[in-house]
Amino acid sequence: MTVPRIGVTPGDPGGIGPEIVVKTLSRPSVLPPAAYVLFADSRIVAAEEKRLGLRLAAREWRPEGPREAGVYISHVPASGWAATHGRVSAENGEASFRFFETAVAEARNGRLEAVVTAPISKAAWSLGGRPWRGHTDYLAQFYPGAIMSFWSERLKVALFSHHRPLREAVDAVRKDALVDFLMGLHRALEKIPGGPFTLLVAGLNPHAGEDGSLGLEENEEIGPAIDAARRGGVPVTGPFPPDTVFLRALGKKETVVVALTHDQGLIAFKLEAFATGVNVTLGLPFVRTSPDHGTAFDIAGKGIADSQSMEEALRLAAVFTASGS
Amino acid sequence: MTVPRIGVTPGDPGGIGPEIVVKTLSRPSVLPPAAYVLFADSRIVAAEEKRLGLRLAAREWRPEGPREAGVYISHVPASGWAATHGRVSAENGEASFRFFETAVAEARNGRLEAVVTAPISKAAWSLGGRPWRGHTDYLAQFYPGAIMSFWSERLKVALFSHHRPLREAVDAVRKDALVDFLMGLHRALEKIPGGPFTLLVAGLNPHAGEDGSLGLEENEEIGPAIDAARRGGVPVTGPFPPDTVFLRALGKKETVVVALTHDQGLIAFKLEAFATGVNVTLGLPFVRTSPDHGTAFDIAGKGIADSQSMEEALRLAAVFTASGS
Repeated sequence: MTVPRIGVTPGDPGGIGPEIVVKTLSRPSVLPPAAYVLFADSRIVAAEEKRLGLRLAAREWRPEGPREAGVYISHVPASGWAATHGRVSAENGEASFRFFETAVAEARNGRLEAVVTAPISKAAWSLGGRPWRGHTDYLAQFYPGAIMSFWSERLKVALFSHHRPLREAVDAVRKDALVDFLMGLHRALEKIPGGPFTLLVAGLNPHAGEDGSLGLEENEEIGPAIDAARRGGVPVTGPFPPDTVFLRALGKKETVVVALTHDQGLIAFKLEAFATGVNVTLGLPFVRTSPDHGTAFDIAGKGIADSQSMEEALRLAAVFTASGS
Repeated sequence: MTVPRIGVTPGDPGGIGPEIVVKTLSRPSVLPPAAYVLFADSRIVAAEEKRLGLRLAAREWRPEGPREAGVYISHVPASGWAATHGRVSAENGEASFRFFETAVAEARNGRLEAVVTAPISKAAWSLGGRPWRGHTDYLAQFYPGAIMSFWSERLKVALFSHHRPLREAVDAVRKDALVDFLMGLHRALEKIPGGPFTLLVAGLNPHAGEDGSLGLEENEEIGPAIDAARRGGVPVTGPFPPDTVFLRALGKKETVVVALTHDQGLIAFKLEAFATGVNVTLGLPFVRTSPDHGTAFDIAGKGIADSQSMEEALRLAAVFTASGS
């Protein structure tokens, strides 16, 4: 059996990323069999192992070598990273960017089946002169159809729009763009084990517009987009009232809610899957997952970070790639 | 001890309202001591008792009589109500409107301390020539400062705006209106046992605008409104990212989240308190509560409606009025 190759990046060295990565990869037996390849400066990893009193049984990664299940390190030198926890720095922004950039390049070249990313600081990237709003934003330059989605046992959500002001998100609810999104989401989901997946689309307005009396987008844009996508072969229904569509999907493993705005989706998802949620970027030629939380600078370096969401992100990456390898 | 007088309306006769009212009031021993006065056509109540095989030990209500704990009926004749379950009718709209109107008039005249309303159908009100969007909308004509809020053990939410298109709700986020709302909400909460209550205000944009890069309303309107309200003596903080503010409030009994839009608040509330949530109208000279669900025409007349939310609505009305009487 050929195991999948899963790149792992530790995120911002000043946040909880290195801690949750070391905690999780020090117990590879709880994860599905895969080659977990950590893209990081090995000095950061060594410092974290020492601090936590844990040890990764990590071998040096050789892309052309045999693929065996286990933990590997691909050393990515980071000049000037700061071991100081809990604050934004240009050096740590640059380091976390380099780790991620290297892993993505390997995945784009077909040498990894998946990339799992611990949290970076957008402010640190910005200080380091990297303009992207985050991992997904960086990936979108290569893959403009990239879709941000969130997965847990009980709820799955895909975001039609994410990092834009609410006013712009409302303006962006247009039939053509929504049809493209639904078709692209469906195609991406077809590649994922566990389907076929059904889509439920949230409305934009209270009560999904209540037949036009509380907003026109449902009748003029969203409903027609759903009809068009359905004619195109997508199993999709809606629009449903935003405040009940998540209840309708809860516990149904093959149902994905399409949220039209960042907070429709994330208010629901964070309440349902706070510690165990996984962020999944769909629509890439490789799998990309990450834990559904940030750098948590306030608790970084204290050894108390919860690695459950990171563990779920690694597990999901392995599950998604296992059947494809 | 003088018990509070709590008016109860059965809502639309074609929905689950009469059923959940009869189920709950047939067991007054599980409720706090109060005079529960059902404003309804007594024929509707009798038909429902017979159908469910339950009996209300109800006396005729005489407003000038002695106040004793128990169940009462104040007969409100409804000409032409239809016993047909499961569909919208003008007759049932008119009947449910008359029950509610009568109870509200009694409360406005100081002859009730609270009104608890089972769900009506807005479509039936409309067919019956009643233009209001619901109970709260009707009350708002007398009390323009009426505030829609939602209460459960784990989460309390007040809505800055509710039944309007999302685009209009975004436009309505203005400093002056928000200051008035926060001051009014604080004054209303001061009258309620269980406080003092602290307010957490949600942002409007993803990540609460992330310092202006994802929207300007937080810096230009919401933040200044919070500062002004705080200077006016309101214990209020924010704006917090909409997708985490509810987690921050969860389980804190004396914390109320201010949601800026209908679905910010109700996505969170319905996930957290689906069967037990209570809708509370604040800012009235009397207490008004109702279950947090609709007429459920699809299951009406089947005897399977869950009366838990109705029971919580009656309980909360009794708790809110007990210390004030």
